Amino acid sequence: MNRQSISAASLGLLLLAAAGSARADEGMWLISNPPRESLKTKYNFEPSEDWLKHMQRSVVRVGMGGTGSIVSPDGLVMTNHHVGLGAIAKLSTKENDLMKNGFYAPTREQELKCPDTEIRLLWDTQDVTDRVNGAVKPGMSTAEAGTARRKLISQIEKECQDGPGGGGGGGFRCQVVTLYQGAKYHVYRYKVFNDVRLVFSPEEVVGSFGGDIDNFEFPRYSLDMTFFRLYEDGKPYKPEHYLSWSADGAKENEPVFVFGHPGRTRRLYTVDHLKFLRDVDLPERMSRVWRNEVKLQGFAGKNAENARIAQSNMRSVANGRKVFTGLLAGLQDPELMGKKINSESELRSFIDRDGANARDWAAAFESVANAERVYREFYNEKATIDAAVGGSGLLSRAFDIVQLADELPKPSAERLREYADPALPSLYLRLYSTEPLYEALEIEKITQALSLLAERLGGDHPLVVAALAGQSPRKRAQDCVWGTDLKDPAARKALVEGGAAAVSTSKDPMLVLAAAFDPRSRELRKLYEDKVESVEREAYAKIAQARFARSGESMYPDATSTLRMSFGTVRGVARDQTPAFTDIGGLFARAQERKGEAEFTLPARWDAAKSKLDLKTPYNFTADCDIIGGNSGSPTVNAKGEVVGLIFDGNVYSLTGDVIYDGENGRSISVDSRGMIEALRKVYNAGTLADELTRK
Amino acid sequence: MNRQSISAASLGLLLLAAAGSARADEGMWLISNPPRESLKTKYNFEPSEDWLKHMQRSVVRVGMGGTGSIVSPDGLVMTNHHVGLGAIAKLSTKENDLMKNGFYAPTREQELKCPDTEIRLLWDTQDVTDRVNGAVKPGMSTAEAGTARRKLISQIEKECQDGPGGGGGGGFRCQVVTLYQGAKYHVYRYKVFNDVRLVFSPEEVVGSFGGDIDNFEFPRYSLDMTFFRLYEDGKPYKPEHYLSWSADGAKENEPVFVFGHPGRTRRLYTVDHLKFLRDVDLPERMSRVWRNEVKLQGFAGKNAENARIAQSNMRSVANGRKVFTGLLAGLQDPELMGKKINSESELRSFIDRDGANARDWAAAFESVANAERVYREFYNEKATIDAAVGGSGLLSRAFDIVQLADELPKPSAERLREYADPALPSLYLRLYSTEPLYEALEIEKITQALSLLAERLGGDHPLVVAALAGQSPRKRAQDCVWGTDLKDPAARKALVEGGAAAVSTSKDPMLVLAAAFDPRSRELRKLYEDKVESVEREAYAKIAQARFARSGESMYPDATSTLRMSFGTVRGVARDQTPAFTDIGGLFARAQERKGEAEFTLPARWDAAKSKLDLKTPYNFTADCDIIGGNSGSPTVNAKGEVVGLIFDGNVYSLTGDVIYDGENGRSISVDSRGMIEALRKVYNAGTLADELTRK
Repeated sequence: MNRQSISAASLGLLLLAAAGSARADEGMWLISNPPRESLKTKYNFEPSEDWLKHMQRSVVRVGMGGTGSIVSPDGLVMTNHHVGLGAIAKLSTKENDLMKNGFYAPTREQELKCPDTEIRLLWDTQDVTDRVNGAVKPGMSTAEAGTARRKLISQIEKECQDGPGGGGGGGFRCQVVTLYQGAKYHVYRYKVFNDVRLVFSPEEVVGSFGGDIDNFEFPRYSLDMTFFRLYEDGKPYKPEHYLSWSADGAKENEPVFVFGHPGRTRRLYTVDHLKFLRDVDLPERMSRVWRNEVKLQGFAGKNAENARIAQSNMRSVANGRKVFTGLLAGLQDPELMGKKINSESELRSFIDRDGANARDWAAAFESVANAERVYREFYNEKATIDAAVGGSGLLSRAFDIVQLADELPKPSAERLREYADPALPSLYLRLYSTEPLYEALEIEKITQALSLLAERLGGDHPLVVAALAGQSPRKRAQDCVWGTDLKDPAARKALVEGGAAAVSTSKDPMLVLAAAFDPRSRELRKLYEDKVESVEREAYAKIAQARFARSGESMYPDATSTLRMSFGTVRGVARDQTPAFTDIGGLFARAQERKGEAEFTLPARWDAAKSKLDLKTPYNFTADCDIIGGNSGSPTVNAKGEVVGLIFDGNVYSLTGDVIYDGENGRSISVDSRGMIEALRKVYNAGTLADELTRK
Repeated sequence: MNRQSISAASLGLLLLAAAGSARADEGMWLISNPPRESLKTKYNFEPSEDWLKHMQRSVVRVGMGGTGSIVSPDGLVMTNHHVGLGAIAKLSTKENDLMKNGFYAPTREQELKCPDTEIRLLWDTQDVTDRVNGAVKPGMSTAEAGTARRKLISQIEKECQDGPGGGGGGGFRCQVVTLYQGAKYHVYRYKVFNDVRLVFSPEEVVGSFGGDIDNFEFPRYSLDMTFFRLYEDGKPYKPEHYLSWSADGAKENEPVFVFGHPGRTRRLYTVDHLKFLRDVDLPERMSRVWRNEVKLQGFAGKNAENARIAQSNMRSVANGRKVFTGLLAGLQDPELMGKKINSESELRSFIDRDGANARDWAAAFESVANAERVYREFYNEKATIDAAVGGSGLLSRAFDIVQLADELPKPSAERLREYADPALPSLYLRLYSTEPLYEALEIEKITQALSLLAERLGGDHPLVVAALAGQSPRKRAQDCVWGTDLKDPAARKALVEGGAAAVSTSKDPMLVLAAAFDPRSRELRKLYEDKVESVEREAYAKIAQARFARSGESMYPDATSTLRMSFGTVRGVARDQTPAFTDIGGLFARAQERKGEAEFTLPARWDAAKSKLDLKTPYNFTADCDIIGGNSGSPTVNAKGEVVGLIFDGNVYSLTGDVIYDGENGRSISVDSRGMIEALRKVYNAGTLADELTRK
């Protein structure tokens, strides 16, 4: 192991590496700054620029929280069932529930267009750090500096998007990404696809076999895959780059690579900042998750249709519960926190020895601690209001319409970032989506949003009084849902196009409700940006300078939903004696073991196909690649760049990966490419799709 | 309706009565102060002293939270399955799960002795208000006055218990009860039974048919009954009083009476105090309930044995979730709060017109508001620590042992009340119980207690640091559970008998863990008693004086787990067109409607018996009697005092009964006496038991 680059990446890992395996394959690396030395030293692998570019142009971001990869010359995209789940649920009806039944379109004509799925392909990137920091003029306060940077970022995004090759907002979209928690700014340009069609998905029970019980566990038996197809101008997209399918799959101890869009890590956080996560952010978040889960179960328990329409929400809340429980348990473990404290004190010793910058860098730690102290004062109020507004499809759209009416008349760079010109196409896609919005579920969600507000802010809080308008949470939710026109996408469009005049004169109860949130929401956001975010950015930029000074710039930044490369070895967990692979035979055995439980009950076609299946076919496997939420749907490839698997989960030890990498026990879990083909051909009679993948 | 007595009972009800039904049968009345006028006016019923005494001596308190009644000359006690559930679960094993299979002992020899069930029969009561208040000397601060009252109460309890007829701590137990939130003190003397044996219980799915989904709903189909037998000196107890069984059952529109031990109401709370419930107490409590429910589900989902051992906890947490959700929703409804505000302002207008006491009485409202403001400051810390300590069978017992070691050497009246002499027999019963304590479940509960502590108090709180002792919550829980001797009742007894010397030198990790809680727990309790409870008692005594001055003393006090009488009419809910009765045929129909769901799946013997059953037999019914949690297991009797039903639930509208009675829609739900006999004879072949009940 290259000790230098690992320590640069996350000092906390030094201890872990010393205590445990010498094989830790840490890092979610920028494609523009890959871990060349580690790869060469450990795997004797030197990725070429062409190889990196090929991988970059083959991997896509699916929606806001997942990854996919282009796997055929006809624009076929492979991702997880649980990444496609939102789209699949939106395409489902009471009469034809694709979640329950699965779906396969043997011909192009049978493919189903998704109502609001957006897929992005990273085209190119550029470092704009100096330009962003140049916006800050001498004498500006931290809050003013933050505002200046945000404005310039918005301007850069617009210039990039309007510029040559940018497509003028058509097929391309630009976004500035903050790296190392504030040390670097890159502008990313994406090619965007809005015409995305569903090709294949298994039954949900097969895609997430074992449900919540087996989630984040291994051994595992999930065919967590779904295939979409990209369309451009009404025709299947013909990509320049797409991945090949490995005939042989992965083998134990083989090096593999994962390319994807890991959502967020906070490994560079200071200890004080981690304590804020441990003592404030995560406990509050968990309390909302537990609440949500129990409330949704109550709703779903009422009848079968409720259960169907709440299913994707229930999946997502159960997943979040496991993610945050694991992370919080990690932070509550004095051993993990001890590692963080030690590595920070090593860094601070280094800083203390630096004559020129010692005071400045040291002060940065205090700045972060102060920012979190300030944030504690209004965290509950802000998080509650954000959760309440975002908790329903109708209310969140109404809120966007209310804010848009105020924001659109301003110059793009002056607006709240999500309403700036470059962000509008994605916003409109969501805003005018034809996804079904079920009255019963919306009433339930808004009731829960309003009662959450009352619980957390108190019944006499001005926003609670304004939002409830003298009614109980449920009565108010019913009136708003029953009385609103916003269930119709055309009505939403008319209001956006009517602008402030249309919105301010509208009597639509859902708009009136949303408007009640607007003033306090803006105040809290400004408070957060000025007193917390701007301070953190500035402080972390300094702390990163100290890290660079100590260990060089060959370190990976925290995950930011942007394209990253991980690497590692196919292997099990020695401590628990878990194997690296499961096979299809194990799937049937597990179904038998938990007989009678819905989430372990295989559809009849699996039992019918059993005799034809090669039960020894590898089905799922683990590797020590460093991944996190957002990597779902990432291709696992071999050194030739061929698909050997499809990332869909991490094991339970990986859940602390948000703040620290555990190479000893943490594992990524993939569906094996061979299991996918075996199931497609023998269970789903999807030979055409399997042929397209394997190019037979 | 007798407007005078109703307004005296709860001023909030005036408005409700005006707006709604003229039939509201409000009140949980003291047997010593029954609603004679209402009963006479409305039902032309004048209860004799003999009738009242007969009822008092036939009704018992079961454990800490339920009611039962003596229903045969051989000490047979009728209660709910869900009241007996704790005992039934403790008598169950992996091999013979009485929860799942039900139980019936056709002969005395087959009856099963419960490990720690205590049943109390109210023998007599005495008003000691003047004596308690006499403990307060001029010049004492509120906190000192509170301490003086608490001490005298403890002394009165001990005198009563040691006095003639008290049995010297043997078969009798004395308790001082605070009524009207502080205006009156009564000493209650109970005859106590510790030899309680299980005679009959149905399968849990029959006892709580429809589970969480149908809980607090009507129409309903639960045979929520269980029979115990009281033993004294190893023989069935021969009571002087016991209830007769009605041959005809109840009829729609018939007056009925409920005698029982309603646990707690807070109808006399001031508006500020209710806002404390709404904005602080209930939201915090709910957040623990949701957390608990999700955590228990995760534990139970792992395997069938986990599900079995966690079942009674899961039932109780799900029930609490519905109770508090309903109450909180009520408090969040501006309509309910508006009624409370109006009735309080009417009372305050009356107070303002009283020359002599106006200032003193008015100040009492401000005192309550101030007490709640003070309480807000440490509510989270106190509630969290209380919940953590009480969250496990082993930890809570270890905590009792730690506190006992400090308390026992003190004179009885100086001790914390639960360790005073009169309280010791019940404490020892619990402490030395042979109930099974499952390691897996204890580890889970202590893990959750410790992580709750870390979440709510922060990882750097001194108690969190001390309790975790450098370990993660789970690791610490494992070490404590695996390493403790306290799983053995004899070891617990030896420590208690060894006193402070034994406890302070013990290295038992569970004791060490419990000891970490002791200092801060005592501090917070003292703070609560001095700054909150003493202030409230004094203030509410004054507010009650104002109420008495306005409306006379013929009002009922808030529920306090002591014996009360409610009355009402058998009827459905007009608004929802729900009937007053369901029948056994409806049970089979409901099972069919929710086919495939575990909590609606009738045992095979029911299907086998179907053809023999009279499907028109009434099964469950509703009445507008004013009940609340703790009334579970109460007999519903007719004017002759004959059993016509067995209270087991309220409908969803009754859930606000903690703070306000809703006679229009709120209903008590009973199992019908005829349905009970039909099922005993034809489904369970329990003719002997049915004969004992009906004295055939």
